Amino acid sequence: MKGYKVKQLLRSTNGSLLRSVWQPRLNFSTTSRPLSSLVSFTKFQDVDHSYQLTLNDLATRNCLSVELVSSAISHLQKASQMDDCRIIVINTPANHTVFSSGHNLKQMRQCVEQQNEAEWKHIFEICSDLLISIQNQPQPIISSLHGIVTAAACQIAAASDMAVCTKDTTFMIPGLALGINASRPAAELAKSMDKSGVKLGMEMLLTGNTISAEKAYQHGFVNHVCQSYDEMQVYLTRLCTTIASKSKFGIQRGKKCFYEQSSQPNLKTAYPIASEYMVEAMLHTDTQQKIQAFFNKNK
Amino acid sequence: MKGYKVKQLLRSTNGSLLRSVWQPRLNFSTTSRPLSSLVSFTKFQDVDHSYQLTLNDLATRNCLSVELVSSAISHLQKASQMDDCRIIVINTPANHTVFSSGHNLKQMRQCVEQQNEAEWKHIFEICSDLLISIQNQPQPIISSLHGIVTAAACQIAAASDMAVCTKDTTFMIPGLALGINASRPAAELAKSMDKSGVKLGMEMLLTGNTISAEKAYQHGFVNHVCQSYDEMQVYLTRLCTTIASKSKFGIQRGKKCFYEQSSQPNLKTAYPIASEYMVEAMLHTDTQQKIQAFFNKNK
Amino acid sequence: MKGYKVKQLLRSTNGSLLRSVWQPRLNFSTTSRPLSSLVSFTKFQDVDHSYQLTLNDLATRNCLSVELVSSAISHLQKASQMDDCRIIVINTPANHTVFSSGHNLKQMRQCVEQQNEAEWKHIFEICSDLLISIQNQPQPIISSLHGIVTAAACQIAAASDMAVCTKDTTFMIPGLALGINASRPAAELAKSMDKSGVKLGMEMLLTGNTISAEKAYQHGFVNHVCQSYDEMQVYLTRLCTTIASKSKFGIQRGKKCFYEQSSQPNLKTAYPIASEYMVEAMLHTDTQQKIQAFFNKNK
Repeated sequence: MKGYKVKQLLRSTNGSLLRSVWQPRLNFSTTSRPLSSLVSFTKFQDVDHSYQLTLNDLATRNCLSVELVSSAISHLQKASQMDDCRIIVINTPANHTVFSSGHNLKQMRQCVEQQNEAEWKHIFEICSDLLISIQNQPQPIISSLHGIVTAAACQIAAASDMAVCTKDTTFMIPGLALGINASRPAAELAKSMDKSGVKLGMEMLLTGNTISAEKAYQHGFVNHVCQSYDEMQVYLTRLCTTIASKSKFGIQRGKKCFYEQSSQPNLKTAYPIASEYMVEAMLHTDTQQKIQAFFNKNK
Repeated sequence: MKGYKVKQLLRSTNGSLLRSVWQPRLNFSTTSRPLSSLVSFTKFQDVDHSYQLTLNDLATRNCLSVELVSSAISHLQKASQMDDCRIIVINTPANHTVFSSGHNLKQMRQCVEQQNEAEWKHIFEICSDLLISIQNQPQPIISSLHGIVTAAACQIAAASDMAVCTKDTTFMIPGLALGINASRPAAELAKSMDKSGVKLGMEMLLTGNTISAEKAYQHGFVNHVCQSYDEMQVYLTRLCTTIASKSKFGIQRGKKCFYEQSSQPNLKTAYPIASEYMVEAMLHTDTQQKIQAFFNKNK
Repeated sequence: MKGYKVKQLLRSTNGSLLRSVWQPRLNFSTTSRPLSSLVSFTKFQDVDHSYQLTLNDLATRNCLSVELVSSAISHLQKASQMDDCRIIVINTPANHTVFSSGHNLKQMRQCVEQQNEAEWKHIFEICSDLLISIQNQPQPIISSLHGIVTAAACQIAAASDMAVCTKDTTFMIPGLALGINASRPAAELAKSMDKSGVKLGMEMLLTGNTISAEKAYQHGFVNHVCQSYDEMQVYLTRLCTTIASKSKFGIQRGKKCFYEQSSQPNLKTAYPIASEYMVEAMLHTDTQQKIQAFFNKNK
């Protein structure tokens, strides 16, 4: 049911929106398909104030083409200004068996044939932009994973604030077989090493072997494993409802503070930053009113 | 039995000791209860050279008031000079169902009403002082958790060198519901991200949901889960006896070296620090005598 | 069978090779046994392009003597220039019940008796050199652990890119009983804290208690636990075959990029490094040919 609604909305909001969205960031002529066939990306507003950012480029198995990535960044930029957007869920339609196949090999081959180094750089940089955007986003971002999550797509899951997946979801970094992606997955792995373990990351990099949803959960790479795609929608609705009931200001500043402090090497440098955020929170009218209301209620 | 003995000692050593202890650090008039009713904190010496730092402010569910925190810091300062103190266990009496309820909302509301920003800062800074004191303490500090561990109290467990808990202990960071504690728990989470996982930390921050003792154990947040409060006392006695049998000098320098190196970004910067500590250890008379004794024994 | 072959090769390549190998780095007269009895270290070439670096000093339970460590470093240095060496496995013969007993207490006692501080420094520095060499090595290094892994030897496992062990393998850091090794294991623990957990590391340091293979696996300290020594050989052969099928250039640069980025505090500083490595990979002839071949095959 839910999956169906998503797809309906995808169809109705496609086309013109997408073209106007990602064109400004697309400075290079890498598109190998006519623009009209691009159904790379869209979103819809849900009842519980979460927005779904749905990867929808079935033909390329949601590869991270410049078009799809540009479109995603553009949607995040707009969402950051939307007052009613409390949570963003990155997902795929129910009929996709691949969450994302990673970098666009066809665009890369074009670069190789044309020896277009500037375009290579652009491909890698725009992917970095997307991942940094995910952490910079004022709203929490939850990756909802279903199917195969490959290479650079693992980075999207890693960069998200939370992640859930279906039990048949698998993770892999196969790039070394071609000699490509050698460093990009390394970036992802280094970044997520606190979560899934250095040695597991190295194993994925060196062997290209598939990691199961269960193993991903055990290593803290995902927060929860659902039995099916439908069950995952129910789980996400409940999760988003809970998050949306919290202070919007608190979440926004809390997320920012969280990652800012994560860069600090130890307690002594981390705590002064936290204290500043705490004082800021106390000075905020919203916080003061909520504390007063709490005491009035408990009188 | 053990729990009873603890409570007896709490009663007999309270009052005058506490007042003289925390007054020097209490520069602000935030106390909302008469001093004589404060039973916020005490300690007793155990047979196995461990000292128990017992949170004992039942009326406020051991909230981290300026008084309780000041008292704790003061005890740690004195303990750092005590020759016979080998290990410090932070715990609560058996009848407490809350290990600690986190920040003192009443003191915070007072600050809000008086728009007393300096006092807010003091509340957050003194909590930072306690957590940094825990890592600076020459003795190992073990958190012995029982009941609900809320928000800022999770930081005490995270900052401790080791932690054990009963199987019904739960962990939560509910502050975002009020918009407060948005950044402080974020500090705790960022700090402990290597242990319990970034994504689990974000989940606790964003949802306020309760985490079980079992999940805390799986993510390395506690070292051991005991079946009951009494079993935990037995476990701790055995643990402290083991630790107390080791070289006191070695533990003191080992702990310092441990956290100093944790701040280093990689092996190349971390190992020179370790080498210096190792040479220092070899120059110490205690170490040299123990090595000689080891060889004499094994001749 | 496999174990037997290893030992045969050890015997036939010993002696002259070893003496010429480690002598250049041995600037201090710490050797307490005649050189001819040293069977500290060797290697052999396997069918699947992996080289086995076998710790073989049974008499001292593979303690990390200056001789053994110098020999290991020397072999790694040579291997870094060998074109056919794709993977290095650090292991022990099947009949050893101790993977390594850690630092050489006899050499340390000699230093104590002679008050030879320069030699102490040398012992610690050369161990650091070995561990840094493991991460600097262009080939992936897999620790194959069997038996007791003590103190400084835990560092070898931690510094390796991957690690497997038999189910009866145990890990311990007993040094604090003597007051020695207080800081060196702390270095190891701090270094591997992202993997095995700060609190588990502190527990090992403070108690000296043994950690099982199962617990090591749960905390991501090893990638896989095998039922027996023989099964581990089969597992390693399959693992090395998989890794050797990947791009050699990709693995070499991927490993370097992995650790370089691990030193970075956050995404914003880590990704530019990754992007540079990615562009470099695309400019490499090997990568370009493999991408073209991939598309020709899938036409």
